[in-house]
Amino acid sequence: MPSYTAPIKDMQFILHDVLNVSEDSTPGYADLDADFTSAILEEAGKVASEVLSPLNVVGDTEGCVLENGVVRTPTGFKDAFEQIKAGGWPGIDLPEEFGGQNMPYIMYTAVGETSSAANQAFTMYQGLTHGAASAILVHGSDEQKATYLHKMTSCEWTGTMNLTEPHCGTDLGLMRTKAEPQGDGSYKITGQKIFISAGEHDMAENIIHLVLAKIPGGPEGIKGVSLFIVPKFIVNEDGSLGERNGVSCGKIEEKMGIHGNSTCVMNYDEATGYLLGEEHKGMRAMFTMMNEARIGVGMQGLAQAEVAYQNALEYAKDRLQGRAVTGDENPDGPADPLIVHPDIRRSLMDQKSFVEGGRAFLLWGSKMIDQSHRGGDEAAEGLVSLLTPVIKGFLTDEGYDMTVLAQQVYGGHGYIEEWGMSQFTRDARIAMIYEGANGVQALDLVGRKLATDGGKPIMAFFDMIKSFIKENEGDEALKADFLDPLKEASKHLQASGMYFMQNGMKNPNAALSGSYDFMHLFGHVCLGLMWAQMAKAAQAALDGGASDTQFYETKIATGRYYMKRRLPATALHLARIETGADPVMALEAGQF
Amino acid sequence: MPSYTAPIKDMQFILHDVLNVSEDSTPGYADLDADFTSAILEEAGKVASEVLSPLNVVGDTEGCVLENGVVRTPTGFKDAFEQIKAGGWPGIDLPEEFGGQNMPYIMYTAVGETSSAANQAFTMYQGLTHGAASAILVHGSDEQKATYLHKMTSCEWTGTMNLTEPHCGTDLGLMRTKAEPQGDGSYKITGQKIFISAGEHDMAENIIHLVLAKIPGGPEGIKGVSLFIVPKFIVNEDGSLGERNGVSCGKIEEKMGIHGNSTCVMNYDEATGYLLGEEHKGMRAMFTMMNEARIGVGMQGLAQAEVAYQNALEYAKDRLQGRAVTGDENPDGPADPLIVHPDIRRSLMDQKSFVEGGRAFLLWGSKMIDQSHRGGDEAAEGLVSLLTPVIKGFLTDEGYDMTVLAQQVYGGHGYIEEWGMSQFTRDARIAMIYEGANGVQALDLVGRKLATDGGKPIMAFFDMIKSFIKENEGDEALKADFLDPLKEASKHLQASGMYFMQNGMKNPNAALSGSYDFMHLFGHVCLGLMWAQMAKAAQAALDGGASDTQFYETKIATGRYYMKRRLPATALHLARIETGADPVMALEAGQF
Repeated sequence: MPSYTAPIKDMQFILHDVLNVSEDSTPGYADLDADFTSAILEEAGKVASEVLSPLNVVGDTEGCVLENGVVRTPTGFKDAFEQIKAGGWPGIDLPEEFGGQNMPYIMYTAVGETSSAANQAFTMYQGLTHGAASAILVHGSDEQKATYLHKMTSCEWTGTMNLTEPHCGTDLGLMRTKAEPQGDGSYKITGQKIFISAGEHDMAENIIHLVLAKIPGGPEGIKGVSLFIVPKFIVNEDGSLGERNGVSCGKIEEKMGIHGNSTCVMNYDEATGYLLGEEHKGMRAMFTMMNEARIGVGMQGLAQAEVAYQNALEYAKDRLQGRAVTGDENPDGPADPLIVHPDIRRSLMDQKSFVEGGRAFLLWGSKMIDQSHRGGDEAAEGLVSLLTPVIKGFLTDEGYDMTVLAQQVYGGHGYIEEWGMSQFTRDARIAMIYEGANGVQALDLVGRKLATDGGKPIMAFFDMIKSFIKENEGDEALKADFLDPLKEASKHLQASGMYFMQNGMKNPNAALSGSYDFMHLFGHVCLGLMWAQMAKAAQAALDGGASDTQFYETKIATGRYYMKRRLPATALHLARIETGADPVMALEAGQF
Repeated sequence: MPSYTAPIKDMQFILHDVLNVSEDSTPGYADLDADFTSAILEEAGKVASEVLSPLNVVGDTEGCVLENGVVRTPTGFKDAFEQIKAGGWPGIDLPEEFGGQNMPYIMYTAVGETSSAANQAFTMYQGLTHGAASAILVHGSDEQKATYLHKMTSCEWTGTMNLTEPHCGTDLGLMRTKAEPQGDGSYKITGQKIFISAGEHDMAENIIHLVLAKIPGGPEGIKGVSLFIVPKFIVNEDGSLGERNGVSCGKIEEKMGIHGNSTCVMNYDEATGYLLGEEHKGMRAMFTMMNEARIGVGMQGLAQAEVAYQNALEYAKDRLQGRAVTGDENPDGPADPLIVHPDIRRSLMDQKSFVEGGRAFLLWGSKMIDQSHRGGDEAAEGLVSLLTPVIKGFLTDEGYDMTVLAQQVYGGHGYIEEWGMSQFTRDARIAMIYEGANGVQALDLVGRKLATDGGKPIMAFFDMIKSFIKENEGDEALKADFLDPLKEASKHLQASGMYFMQNGMKNPNAALSGSYDFMHLFGHVCLGLMWAQMAKAAQAALDGGASDTQFYETKIATGRYYMKRRLPATALHLARIETGADPVMALEAGQF
């Protein structure tokens, strides 16, 4: 049975040594002193390790069961959900007026990593609710907020997002679900939605579905899509639950992983719905939430990599197999532990340097969300918007690969379900797909985000790297091990951008053929930047006489590994990008 | 439901245009004219598509069930196995004197790809039998051959390989299973073996287990391991089945994939066993089979990539989603097919260029097995021995990645089990682990194979590339698109080898830290060589007035893609290798 321990020390290091959150002027950040964040993370970590982690395999094994329209969640999920609610975890960053704790989003992300690592399928029930509540918070009328937000903040009622239909996922303009106005301000919603996570279950009194649908007579395609609130039980004026609405779960999908979450086919049969936001502006309403939701999925990729790494590391230390080529390291035992072998080290260092760098990237992104939402900082808004597809695409692709590496450390024991390593891989796989498949993230990055606002955000990103290098190049060790490689990688990113500018105008395919490589190139540069910043912070702590020298020295050595062995991938991505559209588009469809 | 069509045209191209098998002097190759191989492959392809492929999902869904010591295989497996036996497929390359058809191993591989692609879990029952029969063929006494080989050639009896124990997989010296001599030439085998594929099932009258065990009083560790034949039912002198032996299946493992194959815990309780080969020379006997077995696993990686690619391609042509950025390509439809999008193309081209290049690599390796075993060609033996870990490690790692890419083409539909794409990924995952985990392949390659015979095989490999380039550099198109990139990649491989030589002596970790990168670098160079040869052959066919110009033109364009977009990975691998042991081994185990 795998275990999980929240990486609190690492989170604290990033929050306080690297991002210096409590010194930041963003509203709410002054409260985030080290004692406070430590207390929160300790408590969250306890819930993750003791309540959620033990249910992870249970959820995978039992899955969700649909019987007579009712979905039964796995044994123990309901109790655990009650504990989560009692602890006030679902609403830690939601407004106090609706029962939340109004903490910054960065704390929601840090806490979210712990529960997602411990039990991704379980955590999705709250995650979806959080997304739906956020949408109502931004786009809802006062009455809608009053009706739904208290109960959703506490997760007494949960939420869902209904976008996909059988014939359309990415291309939502093809949507068929209809919303007929009833003249009383309500609509009758009819249609079928698929892949609805947490669409039906037994852990909440009510489920508030947010549903995209078309009002007949509206504009064609994506411009005619509106967003509706469709509660499972209609809410009476006094807040009590009224009649059952015309929405039901038709089927639960069998999936590769996240079995503990009910992925539902939802049938809407003249269900009563209420417009959320404006008519035909449904996509805009959805997109408001997109950065947060996508960063949340990037977090899932990182979280599965972290828990898989923890268990791979433990196994590598415990399992005795073979002898170190440089001489026995466990001479009294029958063999040396796996961790003596260089190729196992390579795997563990790949994992370690990814999860620590990825965590910094994720929390930095979350900080920018706060700077934008709480601080009204438009530059942060622009930059996080640019980086969101990178956070989502890079962290989930790499996160998945890391779970595969972790599984491999176990040899045959990684393939059987008994040790739990297969589940991390199977669960992590979905994060590359949902909330916009990673190819769509790459398209969003290259096709939209790069050119946003005349390229201001990407220029700001390069300026930031340049300034950081300039400010610190007097430190010779930092320069050689971190700044020089970062500069090189950053040049590759700039050259790619230049290639897109020069060639994408004539032939958009020349840019889009390299979009996936660009997303990964960008991700590596971001992790390179994170590692340079972390190395600087770690050295500063050592220079300042920090007592835990091993932690900081390990941090610097891990960063060096990333700079030397992972970051050089940028050159390969650039080389691929510069081959343009010709190799990729050489064949006619019929030639395949 | 996914489908499968054997890529016969591509196989024929490799066999006859590239490898020119029927003109080769290897015994048995003169029979392999195009009509003959086509007839065999057509028939095999039919069995794969019509008999095995439809059972793939069934096997995954039902799995194997252990009840009262009896293992029930999935519905339809037994009937299909009868059809396979009736067709004589299991023994196509085994000697005629035991009922086989004595075809070259290259035909066994080509046919094996079709059945493995159609149903990997099913195909393993025959694959394991083939391996066990081969061991008896090489190491068995005449009596043992007479007793077992007829029935195993036909698969009336199946076989297994018993190596792993709970506490040891790679490090078999730790083995505890004991073999007590009984004075009558037989032994009593006692111990527990795990991960025994096809260990128990209901498709054969008898199961012949090959079991590694230690004879008490023998040498310590790996040098005291012997190999035994342990039949499920003792075979009487007249060939009839006698009493049930003391071997039983204690458990079937729950696994990530290959559910249709029974992965058993096998308990040996004073089971009667017969020494196969010499006392204490069990590992040598096992290793005789190793090249073939590992090439067979490389084939599995390729096969899953092929079937996943076929289905991804079909979906990409069918599924309408979004519009081509260069203008509508399906103006009368609601959207364009996925295949118009550059990032989908990138994915499909990655897959296509891998499976076609990998197939050539695999069949070339199989040809060298024939040249060695049938032709007594020592140079071929040396080269295929060197390349075996590359075939196994590279084709299974890349093959797995390709199934993940193929799954991604389906978006959310790739994650649910309904479309079958998840199964390809889950099934492909095991090939990276069994028959020596890929890290062990890399260790074998760098730690043993490179230095074998004073480095003769690797020098022969480089000479071969050099000669090929020299012979063909007059062809300008070939030179620019294929030979120059191949030369560059080959230099990276040479530089890596040089780095290992110069640094590995002082510090073996300096070589072993780069072993995994070296295996992949080597794999890319091999596929680069295959693509250069295929491009040459395709151009020759075009120049010779071949009627199917589209096939050959597509071949060349696909090769160009590989050379331009995949082969440059060699530079990254070299860069990593040249960082040596320092970054990889920087941390003490306790620092993780």
